[in-house]
Amino acid sequence: MADMAETTAAWTLHPDRMLPAEPTERAIARRLYSHVKDLPIISPHGHVPPEWIAQDLPFHDPTSLLLSPDHYVCRLLHADGVDLADLGMGAATSGRALDADGARRAWRIFCERWPLYRGTPSRYWMETELVEIFGVTQRPSAQTADAIYDQIAACLADPAYRPRALMDRFDIALIATTDDPCDDLRHHRALADEGYPRRVLPTFRPDRYLEPARPDWPALVAALGHASGIDTGRYAGYLAALENRRAYFKDHGAVSTDHSHADVVTLSLTDAEASAIYAAALAGTATEQQCTAFRRHMLVEMARMAVEDGLVMTLHPAVARNHHTAAFERFGADVGFDIPISVEFTRGLQPLLERFGTAAGFHLVLFTLDETTFSREIAPLAGVYPSVYAGVPWWFIDAPEAIRRFRGAVTETAGFSRTSGFIDDTRAFCSIPARHDMSRRLDCGFLARLVAEHRLDEDEAADTAYDLVATNPRKVFKL
Amino acid sequence: MADMAETTAAWTLHPDRMLPAEPTERAIARRLYSHVKDLPIISPHGHVPPEWIAQDLPFHDPTSLLLSPDHYVCRLLHADGVDLADLGMGAATSGRALDADGARRAWRIFCERWPLYRGTPSRYWMETELVEIFGVTQRPSAQTADAIYDQIAACLADPAYRPRALMDRFDIALIATTDDPCDDLRHHRALADEGYPRRVLPTFRPDRYLEPARPDWPALVAALGHASGIDTGRYAGYLAALENRRAYFKDHGAVSTDHSHADVVTLSLTDAEASAIYAAALAGTATEQQCTAFRRHMLVEMARMAVEDGLVMTLHPAVARNHHTAAFERFGADVGFDIPISVEFTRGLQPLLERFGTAAGFHLVLFTLDETTFSREIAPLAGVYPSVYAGVPWWFIDAPEAIRRFRGAVTETAGFSRTSGFIDDTRAFCSIPARHDMSRRLDCGFLARLVAEHRLDEDEAADTAYDLVATNPRKVFKL
Amino acid sequence: MADMAETTAAWTLHPDRMLPAEPTERAIARRLYSHVKDLPIISPHGHVPPEWIAQDLPFHDPTSLLLSPDHYVCRLLHADGVDLADLGMGAATSGRALDADGARRAWRIFCERWPLYRGTPSRYWMETELVEIFGVTQRPSAQTADAIYDQIAACLADPAYRPRALMDRFDIALIATTDDPCDDLRHHRALADEGYPRRVLPTFRPDRYLEPARPDWPALVAALGHASGIDTGRYAGYLAALENRRAYFKDHGAVSTDHSHADVVTLSLTDAEASAIYAAALAGTATEQQCTAFRRHMLVEMARMAVEDGLVMTLHPAVARNHHTAAFERFGADVGFDIPISVEFTRGLQPLLERFGTAAGFHLVLFTLDETTFSREIAPLAGVYPSVYAGVPWWFIDAPEAIRRFRGAVTETAGFSRTSGFIDDTRAFCSIPARHDMSRRLDCGFLARLVAEHRLDEDEAADTAYDLVATNPRKVFKL
Repeated sequence: MADMAETTAAWTLHPDRMLPAEPTERAIARRLYSHVKDLPIISPHGHVPPEWIAQDLPFHDPTSLLLSPDHYVCRLLHADGVDLADLGMGAATSGRALDADGARRAWRIFCERWPLYRGTPSRYWMETELVEIFGVTQRPSAQTADAIYDQIAACLADPAYRPRALMDRFDIALIATTDDPCDDLRHHRALADEGYPRRVLPTFRPDRYLEPARPDWPALVAALGHASGIDTGRYAGYLAALENRRAYFKDHGAVSTDHSHADVVTLSLTDAEASAIYAAALAGTATEQQCTAFRRHMLVEMARMAVEDGLVMTLHPAVARNHHTAAFERFGADVGFDIPISVEFTRGLQPLLERFGTAAGFHLVLFTLDETTFSREIAPLAGVYPSVYAGVPWWFIDAPEAIRRFRGAVTETAGFSRTSGFIDDTRAFCSIPARHDMSRRLDCGFLARLVAEHRLDEDEAADTAYDLVATNPRKVFKL
Repeated sequence: MADMAETTAAWTLHPDRMLPAEPTERAIARRLYSHVKDLPIISPHGHVPPEWIAQDLPFHDPTSLLLSPDHYVCRLLHADGVDLADLGMGAATSGRALDADGARRAWRIFCERWPLYRGTPSRYWMETELVEIFGVTQRPSAQTADAIYDQIAACLADPAYRPRALMDRFDIALIATTDDPCDDLRHHRALADEGYPRRVLPTFRPDRYLEPARPDWPALVAALGHASGIDTGRYAGYLAALENRRAYFKDHGAVSTDHSHADVVTLSLTDAEASAIYAAALAGTATEQQCTAFRRHMLVEMARMAVEDGLVMTLHPAVARNHHTAAFERFGADVGFDIPISVEFTRGLQPLLERFGTAAGFHLVLFTLDETTFSREIAPLAGVYPSVYAGVPWWFIDAPEAIRRFRGAVTETAGFSRTSGFIDDTRAFCSIPARHDMSRRLDCGFLARLVAEHRLDEDEAADTAYDLVATNPRKVFKL
Repeated sequence: MADMAETTAAWTLHPDRMLPAEPTERAIARRLYSHVKDLPIISPHGHVPPEWIAQDLPFHDPTSLLLSPDHYVCRLLHADGVDLADLGMGAATSGRALDADGARRAWRIFCERWPLYRGTPSRYWMETELVEIFGVTQRPSAQTADAIYDQIAACLADPAYRPRALMDRFDIALIATTDDPCDDLRHHRALADEGYPRRVLPTFRPDRYLEPARPDWPALVAALGHASGIDTGRYAGYLAALENRRAYFKDHGAVSTDHSHADVVTLSLTDAEASAIYAAALAGTATEQQCTAFRRHMLVEMARMAVEDGLVMTLHPAVARNHHTAAFERFGADVGFDIPISVEFTRGLQPLLERFGTAAGFHLVLFTLDETTFSREIAPLAGVYPSVYAGVPWWFIDAPEAIRRFRGAVTETAGFSRTSGFIDDTRAFCSIPARHDMSRRLDCGFLARLVAEHRLDEDEAADTAYDLVATNPRKVFKL
């Protein structure tokens, strides 16, 4: 039967894909979905490079557009025995960018292994991209790889496939990028200066600057001093420099800061304690314990600044980054070797929430890769603190079954109003509409079940489906 | 579409609510449910004040009956920005009881925010209460708030809405309250003395008396000495006093003791060790570590006493109580700021179960707010120790999706016979029938799926549905 | 209604049992299942004694065949108050083997308590065994116990019910046993020597030999020295002896080694450190901490040897063995008192995977009893490391709801290709076909839902259903 995978049936997208199979539920879900399917995309967190939009340069080839930047796709190929270098991953680090032949070979590798993706969201997203955006009509396989490659390459030569044309076609009303605090945000400024009508916002991502245990931390705080024009030789200057860069980001349209450390334990040091650790860390004499305390203290400081400047704070902690050193050394970070670990929010965030949990205007969005916290911690916190929102699944678990589990676990304690709206969190630009569409279909399916079980009236479900797409992200991210 | 939420369609309860949508399953579930829907309510754990029933006083107003005592309802309003004081919460602590205008305003706040509850059990319970008990026919909203308030208020003036009339109407055969070990249980005694035909039982809840780290612990053990007439100046007297009060409770009808500490680690100190820590704790010189050891030791002592006096022991550990100090100081405990944490049963309970796990007549019911323990620890323990029962979800997770997850996670290892029967655990008196009805519907739905998938015969499912309502609670709680 | 359980309706197996109830899904599932239902059984891990097959001795009686060796069945009876001795459990340890009357009495105890198993996999397996293998047509109960016993006993007297006839009838193409490293594997050798056409493989299970904290460890390493003919007085000899026994197992057909310790923390000691601890442990002077470090180091050594000799390495950690000492003393190990605890893979395995995660030919299969690791750790690891596979649920959670949760939690990150294929892990020989059939039905049901929701095409689903039964176990276990 192995050859059944090779079948090249005409390929289409079923209009009811990802809706529940049960006919009553499906009929309701279809009606709910019809109201939200064409709403503009709001993407308050992701990793698309802003220069793509600012410079509107054409995409180079199918592989560098669709494969190399997508670590979900590449990691499963790696597990199947493919060398990441053959996929063009980590080209900057490995010094091995793919040439035209290499790009085509990578695409063949991917198409031959298309069965690997059965049951994964990468499958749904890629299928949607290929069919909807590029008009592909054959399932990927060894036989069809070249023809699909040529078809996409031909599209990419067409101005209709440049980033801004796709921004229009995808109807992305707002997209946030993720940026280093020292970034000059020139691309965001250029877009604003020219009056580009779709919002492209930066996001302040200071993790590295808050972790004095890193070997490159002294260089980072020096760079922070340079970027802010504030001497970071002492703790007070460091705080002022961070505040300065936050303000700079806010001036360039930022609405949020994003944080991902090994845990979310928080604590408040005194100024004297923090200053002393800061000095020791710069001098290279701080202990690991001191560095950890400082990092945890700084998360509270980030909350304090958020209360003051109004930027929304998002957390997605507890990932063992670069799990395989050899892969990190060859390919750099973000190549699929980040593995989740368990996390604790209730006790960890208590010091932060004691101080700012009910502060006016403070928004703290809790994302997790550890589903055990959905019903045990995140929903109970979001269901009582006016500052806390439950972030939807966005990494590893941004997939149909997991999103259903999320709604099933969070809604009963926190309802729908305390959730963030969909986050795509992606570098894979062409997958953005597929991801948001998937979320809309799944939420409509969840709501349809509530209606079919007479737990919600259909007008309420329609209202909620609309809110999840249009109201919640605007409210939670202050858009 | 926001205005769709304002629709005031005629409001009814669908007879199939919360049953599965799939027609085959629904038909089976309907048949199963028809056999159990009218069985009397057995409520072996809850928080209804016994004086309500003993004195049969009329309820005051809709807000103090339906809103203020329900922290599920109030906590989501708080998350939405409402001040708990405006809901009449913590009136004793805050000194701000609501007057008539305040009660009406609170009701309006609630009705305006009715959409917050979509998908939550509070929505199902409140809807059922309003429609079934008070005959409300309009969905709560800003427009309907006053009319609904008036309608309920009019009911409350009617003797048919006094507690005992409702006890009859709800057909509550047995209800347990939760009581302090020093309570004189006068209301329970009065009910017994007058021969009130429905059973109203006290429950022995000694948590505070077992935690020497509390600042008020010396005062508590002094009170215990006073209530028991036994000198609690030394450890032996303290044990005797606890045994005395347990006996007092048992004499007044108690069948169980209830325990909720930060964890369920157990250990046995020697008499000399326990005596020394006891003395140190009274003198204010015990260390935190000693206090914790003593508390863990006392949980084993509670099991020992349970083996001796036959009272059932229920545990529901691992909640970070009063997570927000400012809220605690303004409103006191139990206002929605208790947040679950993870818990470990297997290793923690091992010392206790080594001693008493197979003791004749010992019953230990394990409840949890941490769903990860359902399949990993609770079901395996309940599936082998004759003393251990799996408690159904009763706090935060006493909701449709979570109850389905509970059955899905526990049944395959422990079956149905090792589970506790439904627990409502509520202060919200009028929600009791809705909660029990919900549980019956969900269990019938779960059983119906087993039948529809040919994993159980329908006669067996009917038998099990009956047992879960009528047999299990009687067996587990020795009623 | 209690008497409904006593009904003795004619008993048959529904052809659609365990398939989804929803008609569209069921129709697809039926088609998928029709392609895989008759494929031969591959059982790469289990506990059937090899002498049963080698000697082809007739089974003695229904109880010793169907009850006593099945701790799932016995543990629920124990929870219901039955003495394990009355079930013939732990006969070797207790010295109380059942006589003919005792065996019949045990069977009656079981049949009277048949309702205990509702909703458990034991129920489905036993039902399938009784109906399919022994032709039973009445549901077990007090009334039918003796007749069923007699019917099975009559079968067992028939040569068609000897082990090899059943191997043929069940179409078990390959079965692995679990064996002590010092075992001489005479039964496996005898089977090979005679040219028995079905593969019966040993599995190397060295746990005891890797745990120097055990009181019997010095005796165990002495036995290892004896079995290998290599002096184990020093660490180097110990390693050589383990390598020698692995080679012996491989020569006798072994394809894998199996490991279950309290955790999966790994670390690498230097040769000097390991040698020193080894010497201290033999001398009885090693600390608990040293013993734990040695055990964790040895798991890495097992991986090193696996890279060298090609044996597949399977882990299923984190069970509190022999939770109740009194039961252990009366009945020995493996009588149902092993209780799962939580486990951590991401950090724990990092040292091992840093060294061998991408080593050519290395296979590491991660099983767990802690479902929280499915989506958080196991799927992310199996989805990127070419050596790591996600093992299917095999202990406590080898049941319909849990298997569905497994597929729902693992597939979206790791797909189907990174999973192990079904493992029955059983001593209950007659339950093997029922267990594998259950798995096939459930996987077809899961795939059918993907098809019905238009997330997979049916030809792909058929291909995957085949792979899960026929391709994956062969690939993962190198068969």
